[in-house]
Amino acid sequence: MKVVARGQFVMATNLDYQSKKKDIFEKLSSGKIKLYQLDDLVGLDLATRIRREFVESQLDLCLENIGNFCLDPKTCTANIENMIGTVQVPLAIVGPVKIVGEYATGNFYLPLATTEGALAASVNRGCSVINKSGGAQVVVLKDFQTRSILFKVNSIVEAKRFCIWVYENFEDLKKVGEQDEDFIRVEKINPYVVGLNVWLQLEANTGDAMGMNMITIAGKKIVEYIVSVFRGVEFISESGNMCVDKKPSAMNLINGRGKKVVASVMISKEIVENNLKTTVDCLVDLNYRKNILGSASAGSLGYNAHFANIIAAMFIAMGQDVAHVVDGSHGFTTVEKSGKNVLFSVTLPALQVGVIGGGTVLATQNECLRILGVHAPIKETGYNSKKLAEIIAVGVLAGELSLIGALCSHDLARSHKRLNR
Amino acid sequence: MKVVARGQFVMATNLDYQSKKKDIFEKLSSGKIKLYQLDDLVGLDLATRIRREFVESQLDLCLENIGNFCLDPKTCTANIENMIGTVQVPLAIVGPVKIVGEYATGNFYLPLATTEGALAASVNRGCSVINKSGGAQVVVLKDFQTRSILFKVNSIVEAKRFCIWVYENFEDLKKVGEQDEDFIRVEKINPYVVGLNVWLQLEANTGDAMGMNMITIAGKKIVEYIVSVFRGVEFISESGNMCVDKKPSAMNLINGRGKKVVASVMISKEIVENNLKTTVDCLVDLNYRKNILGSASAGSLGYNAHFANIIAAMFIAMGQDVAHVVDGSHGFTTVEKSGKNVLFSVTLPALQVGVIGGGTVLATQNECLRILGVHAPIKETGYNSKKLAEIIAVGVLAGELSLIGALCSHDLARSHKRLNR
Amino acid sequence: MKVVARGQFVMATNLDYQSKKKDIFEKLSSGKIKLYQLDDLVGLDLATRIRREFVESQLDLCLENIGNFCLDPKTCTANIENMIGTVQVPLAIVGPVKIVGEYATGNFYLPLATTEGALAASVNRGCSVINKSGGAQVVVLKDFQTRSILFKVNSIVEAKRFCIWVYENFEDLKKVGEQDEDFIRVEKINPYVVGLNVWLQLEANTGDAMGMNMITIAGKKIVEYIVSVFRGVEFISESGNMCVDKKPSAMNLINGRGKKVVASVMISKEIVENNLKTTVDCLVDLNYRKNILGSASAGSLGYNAHFANIIAAMFIAMGQDVAHVVDGSHGFTTVEKSGKNVLFSVTLPALQVGVIGGGTVLATQNECLRILGVHAPIKETGYNSKKLAEIIAVGVLAGELSLIGALCSHDLARSHKRLNR
Amino acid sequence: MKVVARGQFVMATNLDYQSKKKDIFEKLSSGKIKLYQLDDLVGLDLATRIRREFVESQLDLCLENIGNFCLDPKTCTANIENMIGTVQVPLAIVGPVKIVGEYATGNFYLPLATTEGALAASVNRGCSVINKSGGAQVVVLKDFQTRSILFKVNSIVEAKRFCIWVYENFEDLKKVGEQDEDFIRVEKINPYVVGLNVWLQLEANTGDAMGMNMITIAGKKIVEYIVSVFRGVEFISESGNMCVDKKPSAMNLINGRGKKVVASVMISKEIVENNLKTTVDCLVDLNYRKNILGSASAGSLGYNAHFANIIAAMFIAMGQDVAHVVDGSHGFTTVEKSGKNVLFSVTLPALQVGVIGGGTVLATQNECLRILGVHAPIKETGYNSKKLAEIIAVGVLAGELSLIGALCSHDLARSHKRLNR
Repeated sequence: MKVVARGQFVMATNLDYQSKKKDIFEKLSSGKIKLYQLDDLVGLDLATRIRREFVESQLDLCLENIGNFCLDPKTCTANIENMIGTVQVPLAIVGPVKIVGEYATGNFYLPLATTEGALAASVNRGCSVINKSGGAQVVVLKDFQTRSILFKVNSIVEAKRFCIWVYENFEDLKKVGEQDEDFIRVEKINPYVVGLNVWLQLEANTGDAMGMNMITIAGKKIVEYIVSVFRGVEFISESGNMCVDKKPSAMNLINGRGKKVVASVMISKEIVENNLKTTVDCLVDLNYRKNILGSASAGSLGYNAHFANIIAAMFIAMGQDVAHVVDGSHGFTTVEKSGKNVLFSVTLPALQVGVIGGGTVLATQNECLRILGVHAPIKETGYNSKKLAEIIAVGVLAGELSLIGALCSHDLARSHKRLNR
Repeated sequence: MKVVARGQFVMATNLDYQSKKKDIFEKLSSGKIKLYQLDDLVGLDLATRIRREFVESQLDLCLENIGNFCLDPKTCTANIENMIGTVQVPLAIVGPVKIVGEYATGNFYLPLATTEGALAASVNRGCSVINKSGGAQVVVLKDFQTRSILFKVNSIVEAKRFCIWVYENFEDLKKVGEQDEDFIRVEKINPYVVGLNVWLQLEANTGDAMGMNMITIAGKKIVEYIVSVFRGVEFISESGNMCVDKKPSAMNLINGRGKKVVASVMISKEIVENNLKTTVDCLVDLNYRKNILGSASAGSLGYNAHFANIIAAMFIAMGQDVAHVVDGSHGFTTVEKSGKNVLFSVTLPALQVGVIGGGTVLATQNECLRILGVHAPIKETGYNSKKLAEIIAVGVLAGELSLIGALCSHDLARSHKRLNR
Repeated sequence: MKVVARGQFVMATNLDYQSKKKDIFEKLSSGKIKLYQLDDLVGLDLATRIRREFVESQLDLCLENIGNFCLDPKTCTANIENMIGTVQVPLAIVGPVKIVGEYATGNFYLPLATTEGALAASVNRGCSVINKSGGAQVVVLKDFQTRSILFKVNSIVEAKRFCIWVYENFEDLKKVGEQDEDFIRVEKINPYVVGLNVWLQLEANTGDAMGMNMITIAGKKIVEYIVSVFRGVEFISESGNMCVDKKPSAMNLINGRGKKVVASVMISKEIVENNLKTTVDCLVDLNYRKNILGSASAGSLGYNAHFANIIAAMFIAMGQDVAHVVDGSHGFTTVEKSGKNVLFSVTLPALQVGVIGGGTVLATQNECLRILGVHAPIKETGYNSKKLAEIIAVGVLAGELSLIGALCSHDLARSHKRLNR
Repeated sequence: MKVVARGQFVMATNLDYQSKKKDIFEKLSSGKIKLYQLDDLVGLDLATRIRREFVESQLDLCLENIGNFCLDPKTCTANIENMIGTVQVPLAIVGPVKIVGEYATGNFYLPLATTEGALAASVNRGCSVINKSGGAQVVVLKDFQTRSILFKVNSIVEAKRFCIWVYENFEDLKKVGEQDEDFIRVEKINPYVVGLNVWLQLEANTGDAMGMNMITIAGKKIVEYIVSVFRGVEFISESGNMCVDKKPSAMNLINGRGKKVVASVMISKEIVENNLKTTVDCLVDLNYRKNILGSASAGSLGYNAHFANIIAAMFIAMGQDVAHVVDGSHGFTTVEKSGKNVLFSVTLPALQVGVIGGGTVLATQNECLRILGVHAPIKETGYNSKKLAEIIAVGVLAGELSLIGALCSHDLARSHKRLNR
């Protein structure tokens, strides 16, 4: 039997643990040992178990399901500290969906990890409509990561001088940022000034990695170089929030960040009527009033129905940084008439994905990446991260057209009622 | 042994499955059976296995870890369709952290499900600083869910008449929206007009539920009532995007949605210097330049360092709707001098949480809710959902002060380097 | 001859001024007299002349046109200090345009004071289209002024207590704000909290006045009352920028401020083709792509082509506060098909106008108000300020449909070239 | 006597007009002649008079002050159509203020045309504080005009191809845009994509002109070139609203437009206490809470107290396009401690000014430009428009520090009460 439950495994191989338990628990209670120190003291497997059991004893609870997992704690050390087990998120498979991209071409099953009833069914319906329509087109328009380093100067005249200096010394700064790194390429440094504050926004290509760590490290080197050669500038923060990472921002909606991806599908009048059970005019009208006018009226930066739902489900499945759902929620769904047919598109200006690093190495997440064939990074080119971006964008497209279609037939509440029984 | 791995269980009790396998796979391949139809045909457990094995055979892959799970598919029917297993997210425990709230009072261990290395350690450090400082204060300032229903009228004069009519008939509309529901309370209906478009934004208290489904159903009833009694209004969409759900928006930053929560901690000069290894002035200065000025300069709605990280980790752990990380990413971190000490606060205008419905029933998630003592909903009062909101806000506070502290000592990149080894 | 040039008048009646000139100039040069002190020393007329001549002598310039004005300085004392003359802005008359409003009904000539070539002609063309279409409808949906007072509290628990106290004591606060004032009505006080900061946003009806001064004074009284009876609150600022006055803001786009006005006109296919020289489809399409999608893509709060142009021209003409052009630039132009015809609408959420106070008393501005028949304020009801708001909104509508029409026939640059010769 | 009142002049030299009056009025009433046709029929001077008198007769009004002006209608033909006279805006002189800029160096009197009582006095007080502090520093960080041209393509693949084509053919497009123009320099063309919509944002230096007309004409040429050589692109609009012109936008706050200018002044503790009657701590604190936190809380893009007031007053005085007050209202006021002193700064990312074209030729406006010494444009270098931008920024700085100072001593309402008597 190849598959074992990690929790059971630990229990089986640590029979002598029971004898030490009382002693360790006492030391944890008294604060002589900290929970995080257990990894070094007893090893990762046992530490995970002891922490869990200690919490159980403290709160008089049973955490058996949390403890019943298959990830090897030794593979999780770059992802978590103070591990006590795992949370299991139901995983659906939808599709396959036909994709005609530059990196993703063919039919793809989409893994969705979610607890929101009706979501997988909805995306599945969207995939079916896309397939009937000959597949979805998708392009990656931009691909760069950013980090904005924050400095302070002594006067506004210095601010201007600093901006010019950065511009004139870009090649040196680029070299500094790239040294000792395999595949980061620093492409731009944009200065922004408010009073005495100067942000240097690095733009870099980070290949198949999402790249936040990589660019942070490059930024750190650049900071060290700058403070050593440019007089009169004070370093404030490695991130000055103009990046903008994991926060809603007009900056990213306008200029993009990570991958800017656009996906589309042309749907015929017949398919609209037979499969989406509505009309071309209704789709166009509802999208305009809801996704465009409605979002505008609320001062929103998300001119879409529910990008975040699909992105959250695919990010959890594929071991992406889930907080980047925020960035992914920006963008536009357009529905426009094209002769008798209708063209659906989604524009995602700030999709943050990578196929190395983060949660991509974890056993269940890596299997999901394998389902898409993007588990073997080709680091420098970023081929697979762009392929992943294209696939996610098509998943988002499927989710959008399905929901807009459902709203046109006014059955949103009904479908929630039925499925969330 | 109480705990079994669900994947194994299925394998053990369906020995006769092997004989049917070939036949079912052929029907799936030819499209005679759809993947989603398997639930009804062979039952949830087996359907989950067959779908997974079918994908394995189609893609020549092994998905053993996805198949090695402990959730009972029968408990997941309100959360997923086309299930093939689960994705396991590493779970950490941090704290306990001392909370002085109106609903949460005492010391709480915080479960964090994440794949972002250093996050749990960082929040843990924040909790430790909070504890040394006597605990965190936290208050829930608002508690309401919203849904904006979109109508179209024939003229702007009608738009005005409709707004007035809604205002004058609020009590009737409220009654309609609340009927047959246990505990929703419709508190306001705000009309918004752009040209011929009229959004009616419902505000409702939904007790211990996050409430999106509940308010959608209430909205549906109100729509039916309106179109039956008010002439000259055309119903467009059950959600007109002015809610605003799972999308960045100034609306929610300004007016709030879900729970508006504020948490704070007063940290002494000594603790700042000894534990955060920085100074009060640096904390105040960095927060002002980065979180406030920096975010403003980027047209951001998130005046914070990384709310989304902590919220994502706690939402996954607690079975919340992960797409709501978007809403949770809005808000402010303030760091202000108070005599010799420093007051840290986080203001979360749109925290979407509930302790019934959604993923809260799932085995691992429910155990996390039990760790916080919020697993037994007191539906009408919403006591436990407000308690959960308070605890999450304090987790966010811990994460913010820890990161701001780390940035002040300039070691962000270093800590990433060390932990993401 | 009733009309005299004010500059000449001064010159004629102050023959003895020449003798004192040298002495006064020397005192101004040496700083013994300040320019602003001249009003009290020599009277307004002469002071205006001396300041101008002093600047002329200092800079070796001739400011004869600035000095050739008809406003009586004595009527300008509430509008200006250190007066040296006037700037003359060319005034156009366009229309008349047919308006079917609740306050404005009939045909109105519109005065536009502008230096932007082609603007008056463009609005005139729009008026002509409106007239051919039977006139413009217009409604005022909201009418209230706001001021947000900023306080600081000692803890977030106090913040919550303060919000509740304000809610419970609204009637008292209202009474305090309204006392000794003729016609302000305080209608709401909305608290907003970020950390320890609490904004109380007053909403008040200010009748026929634009009302910023009036509500500032009411706010001042309310502040005095609060600090005298509520312990533990520190007053920070009479305006805490959440008003939001004269600054771009999502707040005002969403919630409105001043007058929220919507104007519309239904234009037939024939008129579109014969007069606007384009098609219904082009108008709808261009407005959607430019005004809605384009603005959204730029993170804009102005989903229109050039509201600000018309508002600036009418505000200067009518003696309104020109900085309020900022507020007026927010809002939406929608162009939607209606059968074979097209419905144009403009939605102005934050139009700040009044017919008493400010520049409305000045001779030329007051004559412009008389052209619209709104010079005699009916203070309490605000009838004339709402009438003015309706008329301006229709002017904006005319300007929008004219420009959108011109863009559809691609002749924007050409018309600029021809007119700006 | 050099100066004559234009209205009187007309009356004197057209004695035979009375005889034709009845005839012309009848033709205007019956629609045989349009108001705008009078210029060609009777000449500009007389046409201006007839239009005014016709309105007087129609409405039974006396518009004598409007008719009592000094601008020569022949000089206004690029600024207005359907002229009937002028509106006179009271003009103040404040300062002189000491400026240490790159283009403006020395002491400058500032002309302010406004009807808002207390504004000139407030700016004057600010100038006085600046002078006592040794003058204001000011730098222009960016200088470019933008126009975004909107196209539509047939597929998203075409969108990508078009973006690449524009990038690769930039030099040709630049040449096309610059031909036959004296001094425009096209510096960048940035493509933005949403679905099938592609905006090409031109960035150009326009020397001493504000440049909107110039860049519109350049854009027109580029459009003609593109549609003639690139297959599969449809031209939609010469302005696609991503410019962003005269509308609030995050785009301009972030990236800048027109001139990006920063001005600052270091004020000593003594001057703060003696002249502003407050403390350094209060200034810093109030600015942070009001201008930064308050604006952020309202979803504002104007992190300042009242930029728009000063910009409106100086734009009217200097013949700038007053609708650009909207762009000017964006930006930041920072107040930061610097040792015992305080550094005030204003950052204006989108100041739209020029010293040729628009209203700069008008007699009164041109005299105001002469006061600043910027009336003689050096077209190519843009020297004087940058000088004007620097001076206006310092005016804004004076206004901000004066108001923040006044708010610190809590006397805003009081000063309004006293001055608006």
